[in-house]
Amino acid sequence: MTYTVQIKVMPLKELLDPQGKAVMGGLENLGLMGVEEVRIGKNITLRINADSTEKAKQIAEEASKRLLANPVMEYFEVSIN
Amino acid sequence: MTYTVQIKVMPLKELLDPQGKAVMGGLENLGLMGVEEVRIGKNITLRINADSTEKAKQIAEEASKRLLANPVMEYFEVSIN
Repeated sequence: MTYTVQIKVMPLKELLDPQGKAVMGGLENLGLMGVEEVRIGKNITLRINADSTEKAKQIAEEASKRLLANPVMEYFEVSIN
Repeated sequence: MTYTVQIKVMPLKELLDPQGKAVMGGLENLGLMGVEEVRIGKNITLRINADSTEKAKQIAEEASKRLLANPVMEYFEVSIN
């Protein structure tokens, strides 16, 4: 069966996010009020052919660890809808 | 009150996603089986100070339309946990 898996890769909370800071400045320049913090990461959608949800999740986690996320700067979350 | 809003910005389904294609090749090189498609977009987390969930969502949608997503190439989804 084919599963659609979402992987969210975000900068670690302890680290500065210069891209987020830049967007924050852009929002202020547009006059958009109320935004206090912006953090920007990646969203990766995988279509995975696997026998079960668990197996699909396992493949997505391995892909995240080995290729998609850099653990020095990022954390990831895997979810299957 | 402060709300945490997630914005997912993804390449339109009709369009090629060269970054996703490259990652797909990388996964194959690592010997990771089962992945049929990879699409890569952005995940943006906003911390928004607003009076209500609806108001926070409205600010996030305006930010997406005016700055975060390029409608020619991307679609966005706003969600509040």
